[in-house]
Amino acid sequence: MANSPSGDAMITRVVRVLETFSAERTVQSASELGRRAGLPSSTAHRLVDELVAVGILERDDERRVRLGMRLWELALRGSTALRLRQAALPHMEEVQRVIRQHTQLAVLEQDAALFLERLSHPEAGANIARIAGRLPLHASSAGLVLLAHADPAVRARVLAGPLGAVAPGTITDPVRLDRTLAEIRRAGVVVAPGTVEAVSTGVAVPVRDSGAVIAAISAVLPRDAPPEAAVRALRAAAAATEAALRDNRP
Amino acid sequence: MANSPSGDAMITRVVRVLETFSAERTVQSASELGRRAGLPSSTAHRLVDELVAVGILERDDERRVRLGMRLWELALRGSTALRLRQAALPHMEEVQRVIRQHTQLAVLEQDAALFLERLSHPEAGANIARIAGRLPLHASSAGLVLLAHADPAVRARVLAGPLGAVAPGTITDPVRLDRTLAEIRRAGVVVAPGTVEAVSTGVAVPVRDSGAVIAAISAVLPRDAPPEAAVRALRAAAAATEAALRDNRP
Repeated sequence: MANSPSGDAMITRVVRVLETFSAERTVQSASELGRRAGLPSSTAHRLVDELVAVGILERDDERRVRLGMRLWELALRGSTALRLRQAALPHMEEVQRVIRQHTQLAVLEQDAALFLERLSHPEAGANIARIAGRLPLHASSAGLVLLAHADPAVRARVLAGPLGAVAPGTITDPVRLDRTLAEIRRAGVVVAPGTVEAVSTGVAVPVRDSGAVIAAISAVLPRDAPPEAAVRALRAAAAATEAALRDNRP
Repeated sequence: MANSPSGDAMITRVVRVLETFSAERTVQSASELGRRAGLPSSTAHRLVDELVAVGILERDDERRVRLGMRLWELALRGSTALRLRQAALPHMEEVQRVIRQHTQLAVLEQDAALFLERLSHPEAGANIARIAGRLPLHASSAGLVLLAHADPAVRARVLAGPLGAVAPGTITDPVRLDRTLAEIRRAGVVVAPGTVEAVSTGVAVPVRDSGAVIAAISAVLPRDAPPEAAVRALRAAAAATEAALRDNRP
């Protein structure tokens, strides 16, 4: 049965194959892919053939493979991520007009902040957040807002550590982090200087749907920029996104 | 072996499950999903359990399922679609500032125009194109540009019909369509009044990467709006997107 895995094992393999792609690695040979996914070469080649046949992967002229447009279509067409992003986008653009830096939309996914959208002004400063990229909950401003409102189990898990220092300003002390989270719940906003990158300050606010915090909208400012205008713009964007979600409930 | 399909069959089943989701149907019960995917109930329930376990699907409090954030992440993180969309977005925003209607980015996928992005002004008119939605190649302005530059085999297939009328202005005569495609290749732009919706005019231009047309950027204007400003803005956006793709080749 080595050549005919059960469906269960096959789904795990497909996920492992998809996991080998990243922003830095959008094309690879079937052999490279197999090695990175930890699959025997013959298995990798056969699996790639099957995934190409249904459009989940695509092959280029040099027989290298990449993620398929069909996968993109299937993943987005009916997705909650797209609904949320569509509700937020016009209001994120408004934030952009005010701050002319970076504006982002993130959700909590597997104990990390997963970024659904990022808009950046051409002259904006440093920003390591990427669309479909992740940042630690305790380090990024969006992550701190998501963590402050997360399920107690998630909070306990993150507070139990390890709380790695991503930048000099990252809060790595669980007691101080817990206090910061309580303050975020009280204030409804976080201003986090140098927690992700020494040169920037993150500002983030929660977005609610049916009462629960489902996302954070954040801005990345140069470290010493006054955050007040960004806080006002982000609060207005969050409120407008919440209204759009209410008007467009599935 | 009915309970343990081969990996090949499993991949096809997973695609059929993902296909049951759409912009109109973002949540469903496992039973509904199974019926729509043409799977026996027990198979559907087991498959949903497996897909939830790896995050491709998510379950809500009422045990209904939806597409998972993890699927979104895996589909986008290393995707060509995201790279193209990131290269185009700032320039599409510039088109938006000029036309204040709809601006879209589309690629050719399985003989249709697949829309990767859509920006819309709050006061913009009708537009049936949706992100991750499709429109027929011969009817939409983006589709006409993609078809004009498509592989001869794709063009022959589409010209062989059927060429359904989506709106009163849709070109349904293959001879006229073929002539229109030649004219699009010559002019580098299409202005298509009423081909998708009677009340609007589509305008589209090609986007090239390494010489080949890989996408179209289009605008949807009210039917009788003069198209000149949109044509100029779209051409500038396509050129700027091509430059961004060149600067950022994987």
